[in-house]
This record gives sequence, C-alpha cells and structure tokens, in this order.
Amino acid sequence: MKLFDCEALDAADVLAPLRELFDLAPGTVYLDGNSLGALPHATAARVQAAVQHEWGRGLIGSWNGADWIGLPRRVGDKIARLVGAAPGQLIAADSTSVNLYKALSAALQIAAAQGGVKRRVVVSERSNFPTDLYIAESLARERGLALKLVEPDGIDAALAQGDVAVLMLTQVNYRSGRLHDMAAVTAAAHAAGALTVWDLAHSAGALPVDLLGSDADFAVGCGYKYLNGGPGAPAFVWLHPRHAERMARGDLWQPLSGWMGHARPFDFTPAYAPAEGIAGWLCGTPAVLSLTALECGVDTLLAAEPLGGLGALRRKSIALGELFIELVESRCAGHGLELASPRDAAARGSQVSFALAGHGYAAMQALIARGVVGDFRAGDARDPATTPDILRFGFTPLYTRFADVWNAVEQLRQVLEVREWNQPRFRARHAVT
Amino acid sequence: MKLFDCEALDAADVLAPLRELFDLAPGTVYLDGNSLGALPHATAARVQAAVQHEWGRGLIGSWNGADWIGLPRRVGDKIARLVGAAPGQLIAADSTSVNLYKALSAALQIAAAQGGVKRRVVVSERSNFPTDLYIAESLARERGLALKLVEPDGIDAALAQGDVAVLMLTQVNYRSGRLHDMAAVTAAAHAAGALTVWDLAHSAGALPVDLLGSDADFAVGCGYKYLNGGPGAPAFVWLHPRHAERMARGDLWQPLSGWMGHARPFDFTPAYAPAEGIAGWLCGTPAVLSLTALECGVDTLLAAEPLGGLGALRRKSIALGELFIELVESRCAGHGLELASPRDAAARGSQVSFALAGHGYAAMQALIARGVVGDFRAGDARDPATTPDILRFGFTPLYTRFADVWNAVEQLRQVLEVREWNQPRFRARHAVT
Repeated sequence: MKLFDCEALDAADVLAPLRELFDLAPGTVYLDGNSLGALPHATAARVQAAVQHEWGRGLIGSWNGADWIGLPRRVGDKIARLVGAAPGQLIAADSTSVNLYKALSAALQIAAAQGGVKRRVVVSERSNFPTDLYIAESLARERGLALKLVEPDGIDAALAQGDVAVLMLTQVNYRSGRLHDMAAVTAAAHAAGALTVWDLAHSAGALPVDLLGSDADFAVGCGYKYLNGGPGAPAFVWLHPRHAERMARGDLWQPLSGWMGHARPFDFTPAYAPAEGIAGWLCGTPAVLSLTALECGVDTLLAAEPLGGLGALRRKSIALGELFIELVESRCAGHGLELASPRDAAARGSQVSFALAGHGYAAMQALIARGVVGDFRAGDARDPATTPDILRFGFTPLYTRFADVWNAVEQLRQVLEVREWNQPRFRARHAVT
Repeated sequence: MKLFDCEALDAADVLAPLRELFDLAPGTVYLDGNSLGALPHATAARVQAAVQHEWGRGLIGSWNGADWIGLPRRVGDKIARLVGAAPGQLIAADSTSVNLYKALSAALQIAAAQGGVKRRVVVSERSNFPTDLYIAESLARERGLALKLVEPDGIDAALAQGDVAVLMLTQVNYRSGRLHDMAAVTAAAHAAGALTVWDLAHSAGALPVDLLGSDADFAVGCGYKYLNGGPGAPAFVWLHPRHAERMARGDLWQPLSGWMGHARPFDFTPAYAPAEGIAGWLCGTPAVLSLTALECGVDTLLAAEPLGGLGALRRKSIALGELFIELVESRCAGHGLELASPRDAAARGSQVSFALAGHGYAAMQALIARGVVGDFRAGDARDPATTPDILRFGFTPLYTRFADVWNAVEQLRQVLEVREWNQPRFRARHAVT
C-alpha cells in the first residue's frame, strides 16, 4: 500500500465530503478525536449567536424564546438516534462521572430491592476508565458493598458467583480499544441476576450502538469525544423504559434530585416530585452554551445519516484501523511496537493502540511536534503485562482520510528511525498527557 | 424624586463607567440580573477565541497550552476574592445542585462522626430555593435523617432541640431578598453543635460575603446570577480549611469522586485518592467553554475593585433598592402592591419583591413587554400569608442606573393604571416564568 493507493481510497470514499463540515488545523493529522473531537464549522457561529443574541439580547426570555429549557431533551433526542434509544429516553446533562453516579446509584437500588443481601458486589474491569471505578468505589463505600475488578476474560467467572448486583462496563476500553458485545454481555449479566450500567464514552458516535436492542439497563456517555461537543461538553444518560416505569411508580429514584428534574420546577414547591422518565434525571440548570456546542457536534454526526450513517462510518473506521495496523507493522517493524488492541476489527472500537516500552511518552511528543496528534496513556507499572505504556490513535471517519493514516505512519516511522524520542524536549512531562 | 434627580445621581456615580463593560439590550431596563446576569462585552470575543483558537487549532494540546486544566482553580481563586475565601479554597465546577450534594453529604458525614445518633436533623427554611430542599430531601432519605423546614424566625428554636446535624441556608432568600447575618447565624449553629452549609446564589457578587470571617463550614454558589457567567454557567463550592484538613487525614470525603478530583488523575490508577483541599471536590472533566464565559463574568466584577469593590457596589445596590421602594410606594399606591422584602436595607440583598395578589404573572408580562424585565415567582397557594405571588426586581449596581429605576417604576405605574394585566396575551403562561 502506497500513499497513492490511500489517496485513491479517499477519492472513492462517499463519506469524504463530511470532512468539509470541520474546521481542521492546517498541517495536522488529528488522531485524537477519541479524546477531544475536532471543531465543526457550524459551532463557532452557533455559539456566538447563543452568546450575543440569545443571552445578550434575549436575556432571561431566552429560556422560553430560544428554548434553552428544552436543550437537554432536544440534544438528548439527537444522541438517542446514535445509540439505539427512543426519543424522550435520553438527556444531555452534567458530566459522565456525575451521570454515572446517578445510574449506578439507581441500579444498586433496584438490585437491593430484588436481590437483597445476596447482591453485594459491583463488578467492573480493572482497566476501565478510572472515573468509572472511582465513582463505583464511592458508592460501594457508602453502601457497604464490594467493588470487584476483573480482567475482561474474568467477567463470566465473576457473574457466576451469584452475588453480583451490577456489572458496570465501558463498551470500548479507553486503552486497548477492546469492544464488548453489548447484547451478549448484557444477556449474561441478566442470566446471572445482575443489572448492567454501560459507559459509551468511546462508542457513542463511533460505531452503531443498540441500547434497546441489547436490553441494557442504564447507559452514560461522553459529549466531547466522538460527539464533537467541545472541551468538557455535557455528557448524557439513558435508562431503559422498564426502569423509568419504576420511577413513575415511586420505586426508584436518582440521588441528584435538583430542581430541573422536578415534575413542575416552576411551581417552586418545597417537596421533590420527579418528572416522568429521563427528565427526572436532570439536576441543576442546563449549561446552555456547552449544550449549544454539543448540539452542533451531534448534528455533524447526523449529517452522515443520508450517506449511510453509523453503519457507513463504522465500515470506514474499520478500514482506517486495518490500514493503520498494516502500515505500522510493515513500515515500523523492529522498533518495539506491539499491537495493544484486538487484531480482530469486529472486537475493536474506533482506535488502535500500540504498546511501546520505555519511551512511549517521548515518542508521542515527537510525533505531535511533527503534526500527528495521538496520545499517550501510561501503563500500570505493577502490571505491565496487561496494562503497558501505549500510544493511542483514534480514527474518526467523519474527518480522517486514508492518506492521513499513511502520513501518520510515515511520521511515526521517522520518529522511531532517528530515535527522536531521545530529545530532552520531548521527555519533559506535562500536567496533562 | 424626579427623573431629573435620578439622572443627577447617575452623573455623580463613580461606578457608572462599569456599565460600559456590558453589552446591554437597547431599550431594555434589565432588573433580572439576580436570575441571569447580563452579557459582558469581553465574553463574546473570549468565548469565540476559546472555540476557534484553543479548541479548533490547539485541540487536545490546549489542556496544557491554554491551561484548560487550570480553569476550575483559576476561576475559583477569582470568585474567592468576592466571598472572603483564600486562594486555593474554592473551585468553579458543576451546578449549584451538584455542589450542594457534595457539601451537604460531607457536612452530614462530619456530624455523624461528631454527634452520632443524636444528630439526625437537617434544618432549612421552607422558602429556601427548591433545589436546595430537593437535594437535602434526597440525602436525608438516603441516610435515614429528617429534613425540618422552618420559617426564618424558627431557626433558633430548631437549633435549640439539640438534634440538628446541619443548618443549610441560602444567605439571601430568592423570593423575599431577606439577608441572613452569616456570622451570627453560623455562631448560633456552632453553639448548638450544628454545621452550616451556605448557598450564596443571591449574595456572591451582590454584597460583601466573608466566609472565613463568618467561620462558615461549607458554601456553594451560582455562576449565572451576579457573577454574570452566562446561562447555566458552572457553580462554585468552598469548604473551610479545617474540613480540608479532615480530607487530608482521610476522615472526610465527598461522594462525587470523579477523576478530576484525584490527586494524580493522569496516572490513571484504578484506586481513588483525593487531591488535597478543594481540588478533591472536582468531579468530571471541566466544562471549558462555560468556565471561559464565567471567568469573563467574574472579571467584570473584579473591575470594580479599584472603584471600591463590593463595598461600593453594595452601597449603590442599597441606594437603588431604597429608591425603588420609595418610588413604587409613592407612585403606584392603591394598586395592591405590598412590599415583600425587608424594609430595612441592611436585612435585604440586592433585590426588592412586591406581593401582588391575583394578577402578578400577567402584570410582569405586561411590564416586560414595555421593556422592563423583572420576574414573577408564584406563591404557595396553601400558605399565601408567608409565600404570596411576587414581582421580583433585581438591582445589579454594575449596570443598573438610578434613571433605570425611575423608568421602571413609571412603566409599572402605567401597567397598573390601565390594568394592562387584563390583556389575554399577558395571561398565557410560559413553561419558564
């Protein structure tokens, strides 16, 4: 495969025009959309209008006049189309961590009602994204439960113990990109009497997700990765209609019962009464400017619908990932890179990670200095076999070209060839990596 | 007092130039800065730069390059100057409701450790802002505690019971504008063995607040009212250094233990270890665009520092409020308006409310149609004596002129005089009031 062949793939790519929807930094190959999605062209103007017209001129009247009050639901309905949920089932609000607290708290409440003292364990993966584990640790501590962390192949054995209240997983692992089969894992959890809480941070907008079809219980997800909502964009939360019914019966509540989740917030009554369904999962006043940016980001994904939608995006994402693996393994051989993602594309999200012992951080800094932006994730020094230092590359089919992949690998090859990671300027650590 | 006299007051006002920092809607007298602060001129350009340059060009590198990662602390340090806190003690993050959950949860933990089974009651005011009550209701339910709601003059009696864990109050009541003496109430609570959680939603940026001098325990506040941070701006949270020490000793934690509150978030370790002090109260990824707007809003308040700061703003706020009461009572007499705020300016925040039975909502809509923007807050039909329907007017000394007050009252007089509230178009209710 030569650069010329990659350019031919781009020329034949029906999704190629979507790249024009983004304001991309010239000279940069951005392979970090799995950490922070790129800026859509529409966002700057839309946010400016929200600031200057809606806020500056409409002032308080924009809660009705510009339908600020409807933003969490409106953006939520758009995200719902990307994750196999129905309108009215999902809201955009708060952060992933805060939404996870709501979801896991509610799931534990159901488990306690159904399983009683038998169900005392929350199971997750040890390499799950830390914020998920930290929130679970807090709730487990508060409720006197155990948090059991297992490797991916230890989930079935953990479920077999019969004491699992909730299985909490991220569908696509942030390090390895390993993709869980949501329907199969959820069925296994249910068969074992456990509920599921899914974090879609690395899957929403990256590949087709079918929450209803998978019979999942709760889900949260991130707005600033594949949804292109901007730095620190609001997250989202979803619950299955069977659990919404529990709420309607008063058998279930979520702990962050702020006024926006009240059935009649503008009655200003002193007693809490949750709104029906997912609306009762709102907490504080919606972050209007951030939600406005998020809506633009989601709209860029929905623009792919006439071109085949997430199915077409997933096919391109796999093609990009396969090309990347093939080129790295053929052109960067002998430099110690080892594939740290599943080789089977069907078991991999929209990212590819390579382990690089010793100088991964500096190598990534050198690569970034050459205009190829991926990121580095430190491994667990206590267990480098399962969690090594990795270079992580995200492939966002909305704006990543096949030629970008070729050029990225060529720059990586040069960095390794000339041992550029040896330069002191690339070895100094930043606060955020 | 004539319009001419008001214009003379404006001409003599040393704070008058601060109005130029705001992008104000022409033809509008905006008396709702206590609900949503007006747009500072600097904000539009600053947010645009954050979107186009920091996000669009800097991409993921802006977490370091534009110090996005430092925003919660940097904005927090600026807010600290407005509320009598020290640098490093306060962060801007999440919503008021979410921060209240953290603060009340932590306060209850201390109370349980100190007072054990004797301390089973959370006391608040029945007319406190509902979200505060809803969050307290949730935590009380979760922990098997009682939430006792009293009238303002019932606080001492409640404390005297000896069973109060936490006294949770909003310093300035959102309806009446009644202002608590934070130092005196905190001393009374402490003498009764209770902790205090203060909501500064209607006091931060409106009047001098002295958290450390008042020996308060915990505080939260709102970013979108007097701090001019924009619709749904992030809120803030503070805890007294003596409680930060408890956290450092591992004796205290806050439940929303997301990754941004970890001591070393970028180590990605599976076990939670809180950052020191208030940094451990961060939860999810900071909402960069919203925090950027909030910083501009806080900066406009800090621009008053060379002109006398909050002391001078408070004096002007009182003068505006006194003028408003005098003009309403002299020029709108006979139309059923009754002052629903303390007559003593020292016991009143930066707003003035008038009760108007029967047609308050429509009267406010008519007034807004005439370009005078205040708001309406429905009373509690079960107890109109203590919580009547009110018209609420906020006086933001940064941008409100004495002539604005005169003009507002004149429009109000005309609305009442011609019974404009009778027009059907003003009687139709919106979702948000």
